[in-house]
Amino acid sequence: MRHFTALSDVEDFPGLLHRAQEIKKNPFHKNHLGKFKTLGLVFFNASLRTRLSTQKAAQNLGLSVIVLNVTADSWKMETEMGVVMNADKAEHIKDAIGVMGLYCDIIGVRAFANLTDQEEDYSEQILLSFVQYAGIPVVSLESAIRHPLQSFADLITIEEYRRKNHPKVVLTWAPHPKALPQAVANSFVEWIKALDCEFVVTHPKGYELAPEFSREVHIEYDQNKALEDADFVYVKNWSSYTHYGQVLSQDIDWMVTPEKMQLTNQGYFMHCLPVRRNVVVSDAVIDGAQSLVLPQAANRVFSAQAVLEAILEHNF
Amino acid sequence: MRHFTALSDVEDFPGLLHRAQEIKKNPFHKNHLGKFKTLGLVFFNASLRTRLSTQKAAQNLGLSVIVLNVTADSWKMETEMGVVMNADKAEHIKDAIGVMGLYCDIIGVRAFANLTDQEEDYSEQILLSFVQYAGIPVVSLESAIRHPLQSFADLITIEEYRRKNHPKVVLTWAPHPKALPQAVANSFVEWIKALDCEFVVTHPKGYELAPEFSREVHIEYDQNKALEDADFVYVKNWSSYTHYGQVLSQDIDWMVTPEKMQLTNQGYFMHCLPVRRNVVVSDAVIDGAQSLVLPQAANRVFSAQAVLEAILEHNF
Amino acid sequence: MRHFTALSDVEDFPGLLHRAQEIKKNPFHKNHLGKFKTLGLVFFNASLRTRLSTQKAAQNLGLSVIVLNVTADSWKMETEMGVVMNADKAEHIKDAIGVMGLYCDIIGVRAFANLTDQEEDYSEQILLSFVQYAGIPVVSLESAIRHPLQSFADLITIEEYRRKNHPKVVLTWAPHPKALPQAVANSFVEWIKALDCEFVVTHPKGYELAPEFSREVHIEYDQNKALEDADFVYVKNWSSYTHYGQVLSQDIDWMVTPEKMQLTNQGYFMHCLPVRRNVVVSDAVIDGAQSLVLPQAANRVFSAQAVLEAILEHNF
Repeated sequence: MRHFTALSDVEDFPGLLHRAQEIKKNPFHKNHLGKFKTLGLVFFNASLRTRLSTQKAAQNLGLSVIVLNVTADSWKMETEMGVVMNADKAEHIKDAIGVMGLYCDIIGVRAFANLTDQEEDYSEQILLSFVQYAGIPVVSLESAIRHPLQSFADLITIEEYRRKNHPKVVLTWAPHPKALPQAVANSFVEWIKALDCEFVVTHPKGYELAPEFSREVHIEYDQNKALEDADFVYVKNWSSYTHYGQVLSQDIDWMVTPEKMQLTNQGYFMHCLPVRRNVVVSDAVIDGAQSLVLPQAANRVFSAQAVLEAILEHNF
Repeated sequence: MRHFTALSDVEDFPGLLHRAQEIKKNPFHKNHLGKFKTLGLVFFNASLRTRLSTQKAAQNLGLSVIVLNVTADSWKMETEMGVVMNADKAEHIKDAIGVMGLYCDIIGVRAFANLTDQEEDYSEQILLSFVQYAGIPVVSLESAIRHPLQSFADLITIEEYRRKNHPKVVLTWAPHPKALPQAVANSFVEWIKALDCEFVVTHPKGYELAPEFSREVHIEYDQNKALEDADFVYVKNWSSYTHYGQVLSQDIDWMVTPEKMQLTNQGYFMHCLPVRRNVVVSDAVIDGAQSLVLPQAANRVFSAQAVLEAILEHNF
Repeated sequence: MRHFTALSDVEDFPGLLHRAQEIKKNPFHKNHLGKFKTLGLVFFNASLRTRLSTQKAAQNLGLSVIVLNVTADSWKMETEMGVVMNADKAEHIKDAIGVMGLYCDIIGVRAFANLTDQEEDYSEQILLSFVQYAGIPVVSLESAIRHPLQSFADLITIEEYRRKNHPKVVLTWAPHPKALPQAVANSFVEWIKALDCEFVVTHPKGYELAPEFSREVHIEYDQNKALEDADFVYVKNWSSYTHYGQVLSQDIDWMVTPEKMQLTNQGYFMHCLPVRRNVVVSDAVIDGAQSLVLPQAANRVFSAQAVLEAILEHNF
């Protein structure tokens, strides 16, 4: 693997999944692989799980880590090409990326959607600038439209907890007071196809995901019907794609409650966190015995470590 | 030792003090103890000494360190239980702590008093949430009401500099323009009982510490009288406990000056830093030959290292 | 070498340059030199290249690194001596430096000019406070008036790319919307004297550098004339020294364009970054084949590593 930005970068998904499972049993087996190599982590946005789990994964591999919080540590960055830089931005992202590529062996970058310009967001401009200018392997720590390390960890978790060969997995939208990116939902839809399962998405009308992600996906607009016999319920809010970045509904009936979970086949509750309790999901569900939010978060280390290991072995 | 939040967590104080003294002579002796283990440092507030000395202590033990500055790096956190999270806070502290516990082997946390709600502060809510939800050993880097790593370093320092078996130690309040927590004073009062000494606290009326700390402590409201023949003068401002969080006095006569120090038995001056010069203490005292502020700060490495070592040896 | 704050701290420049070239070929040769030693990096200002390249250099030497961003992580600092600290600053820089010196073996510090008080800036107050109070070797990561690690990297780059024994090197001022410090220009003028070359400075009238730097330097006020037959064109904006901190000109005719570069001897373009594209230099030049901005940035690792190595070998 050269870069890790989407499922399509993974040549052999079953092999990578198997490695993640092996790493979980023995995380320090390849502790010398990263010797004398540096992972740079560049954050344009807040991060808790990704920040910590990727550092932990790197340490397990013996990689040195350098963290850069762009807004706090560095210069305001211009992202447009060809512009006359006479306003408040002191550095062009093209130059900054080129330089960061000189000091690191692998670079991870997080840059969220701004949710104002659909075309800009869906071009994954900042992520792809890193791929273009860094000169070294790039790992997405969540782009404007994808969060592949999260989806990979989610699949590791489903594999760990599934009780049958062909489980039913439901992705349900839930309400939220603020407009959120579609990245986690897009990525989950993209990755779940790599598992043998029945997959259904449910959301209010107007919340259809972008065609490149929702094509060939079974949509069921009735949440209760979708949840019937589900083995895994993945809950996530996102803002509208068609009415780009808008909050079309805050309908609290879509919140996932114990009553909703009763409809499932003793289904597991999943969420990537952070989560608004008692808006997206009630305390009783997230704190209940069927909640997988902590196992999902734990697997973030192993999804990151499997990816970093594959990049180290392939490129160096 | 499982957690380190107060003196009561220390089973064998003389033993721990002895280890700190040994570590100071040979800081790298147990450099392999922390191999493949990670210390997470979570800061809800500013930190200089604690931040740097705890990292140094961890490095001496071979521990990897991950630092999280909650406000700058991560999400706004809800601390109340059972609340509907539809305002500006994106993550519940319970979830964040559970996740951090997955990526670390030991976690250190700093969360100051807000000084508005006495009951909330004195319940050490954030610290105890870490103890409850992290699932791993927790080290206080200063809670709302205690600063145990500071007090331990202070006791190491007194042991190092005492010229007799039963020295006189005075804790004196001093003026300050802002309302400060009682944590350092509370902890010092709690810990000094572990040393064989004569102990006196002096402050203006209204600055009595909380009963759980000041019970059985000798209070002398006349600062000059308290300072007589003191071997160690520990100076610190704190805001009122009874008129909770208020600044009742800014009486500059309580500032520690060379004249005040003349009353002592060539006493040493101590302060935990940061300190307001020429408000809390005059330049001539803090820069003088009897000032122990730098030795105190130096011992922060060894108090932290002794605690981390004890936790590593007991729990892993 | 004890400290590294200016060229005058370097006893043997050709020897240090040679070491940097050797390190570039084999960066991990002395990876055990920093074992059990800690480099503290203290930033009063933003940093990208310096922050990352110095961490990388330290890792190559096996040094542990602790980063402190003063504004974000720590307390507001008082820098004046003898002051009554009853306003908003919680810690005196003298105390903070003394403490940081206890936890580190080498300390690097970045503190820019404020451009309001010439005397204060040109006394390098903060940098020299570190030299005075830290008690350990100090490395400048850019002071109010010098940026020696940058200049050293620039000289490594010129040595690498020069096509003749006595190349012509031109430092040219260029326009910029904001007032910038003179540090990079001062340092370049200071260091270039260590190389065998013809050196010319060009800038509009009123932009003369401080006498201590510009003395004995050939100034040519006609930029086109200065650029004739240049082998290296070092471009940089700075604000006026004589009208201290002022922007006297934003004359876009001073921007470095392909037409200007035509005047040179197929000269190389140099800039320390960050750079305002199409204000200081046009895209065509910085993105062209003769641009050395990335090689300069790459050499920041080796200038820092040669300096840290020399300090480790001399002091420990």
